[in-house]
This record gives sequence, structure tokens and C-alpha cells, in this order.
Amino acid sequence: MLYLEDLNIGDKFISRDYLVTLDEIKEFACKYDPQVFHLDEERAKDHPIFQGIAASGWHTSSIVMRLWTECFPLADGLIGSEVNMRWPRPTRPNDILHVEVEITDIIPSQSKPDRGIVIYNTQALNQHDDVLLNSSTKILVFRKPK
Amino acid sequence: MLYLEDLNIGDKFISRDYLVTLDEIKEFACKYDPQVFHLDEERAKDHPIFQGIAASGWHTSSIVMRLWTECFPLADGLIGSEVNMRWPRPTRPNDILHVEVEITDIIPSQSKPDRGIVIYNTQALNQHDDVLLNSSTKILVFRKPK
Repeated sequence: MLYLEDLNIGDKFISRDYLVTLDEIKEFACKYDPQVFHLDEERAKDHPIFQGIAASGWHTSSIVMRLWTECFPLADGLIGSEVNMRWPRPTRPNDILHVEVEITDIIPSQSKPDRGIVIYNTQALNQHDDVLLNSSTKILVFRKPK
Repeated sequence: MLYLEDLNIGDKFISRDYLVTLDEIKEFACKYDPQVFHLDEERAKDHPIFQGIAASGWHTSSIVMRLWTECFPLADGLIGSEVNMRWPRPTRPNDILHVEVEITDIIPSQSKPDRGIVIYNTQALNQHDDVLLNSSTKILVFRKPK
């Protein structure tokens, strides 16, 4: 498990693969994003952008969170304060996602010596290397207690 | 249902209330963010930041998406391309959330006369008027077909 002093700008973390099923797309959408292009395969075909069923962007983001927790093992957890995120392409049923993380900045706190802010970029890619999500995230990371 | 020509800078949309239960916090976290401060009430008490169980930030974001679909009724759906989001405070069990949306910019497409980009700010507030999430979102909005 990693503390602030274990991290360096340029460090990379790569997750396992995650299969996104049609059932999971519909289950998530039903609860949190009940729009027709996430729920109804026939009607989604007629949508001017999606032209077929697509996962909610928030579903893709949530899968990315899951993969972060597995591949980026911070001792006190991933505590996000801010994110900037884009979804260049929709996630489709049976896409196999993985995420690639790279640390871009580390800012020790001036006022609280036990912690700092870490900024990292993420790409979520499918099995064709299409980028489905990219983001820059700010998290709070603690030093190892003395 | 609204098209691009129905929207104006400054338009506001306010959602219904949404009760966030402990069971829902754990169910979401179990799937997408299995960190101890989202899952285990006793162990969460000792966390230096959370000091008690908190919803995943992605759970809060997903609830906001649900409330957007209900209070911001675009004819072709909410098609997000980019978001910048902050979570100033954690969502807690039994918080009652609502969202307040305000359109901040409308940019007609130069190349595709049937559509434009709409930018809107969101605040998600609980029953004490604490801001749990704020964001700026870019979405694609279509004009009414002629």
C-alpha cells in the first residue's frame, strides 16, 4: 500500500480488464440514467449520436473508479476532490475496458505536513484501443504515519 | 421536451428530493468503489477525513445524473461530452439530495446547423443546504427537426 513519499511524477499504474455486459449497462441505467439509448436496443438504433445501445457515461466512470481501487493501492484510500473528465466515445455492450493511470503532479501541503495533493491522468481504453474516457483527477494522499 | 432553441442562458431547473439510504451507499460501493469508508460503519469512524461512512463520489454523481434526467428534459436526451466536478463534502446516509441547474453558455455549432453545445452549472445540496457536489457540464443539444 502506497503513501505520498512512495509516489513520483511519471509513475504508471495499469488495471486488469473489465467486461461490460449488456445486462450491467441496463441495470446501471435503470437506476441512475434511464435514457432510451442506455436501455432499449431497438430504439437506440435511431438515435442521431449513439446509433445503438451505449453505457451511461457515469457507468463508465464508475467502472473506472472500481479499476482505480484495484490498480492504484493508496494506503488511506482514493479520496478525490476534483475531476475533469471527457467521454470521447461511448462504451458498448461487450467492450473490455482497462485503465491506464499516470501521475502528473505531486503538491505537498504547505499547512499540513502529513499530506499532499496528487494529480493523475487516466485513459480508459477498450479492446480496440479506443479511448472511452480520459480524465485528470486531484486526490488527497497521506504520508506514512511516523 | 426541450430543444436548443428553447434554452436561454440563465435558465434554471430544480429537481425533486432524493433520499440516499445506507443500503444504497453500500450496494453502489460494493460494485464500483469498495473502499472501507463507503462500506464499513465502524472502520469508517477512524478515517482521518471521513470520520464515518460516506457515499462514493461516483455514487453522488450518478444520483445527480438521475435527477438531471428528471428535471432537465431535453428532447434528444442528455448527451454529455465533458464535465468538471468537485465534491466539497461527502454524502452521508439519510442525506436528502436535490440538484439545481443553471445554463451558463449556449454555443451553436458552426459546421452543423442542427445542433449546439450547452454548458450548465450544477449544485447538489442536502437538507442542510451543504453543497455536496458542484460541476460544469458540456452537453450536445439538437434543434427541433424541421
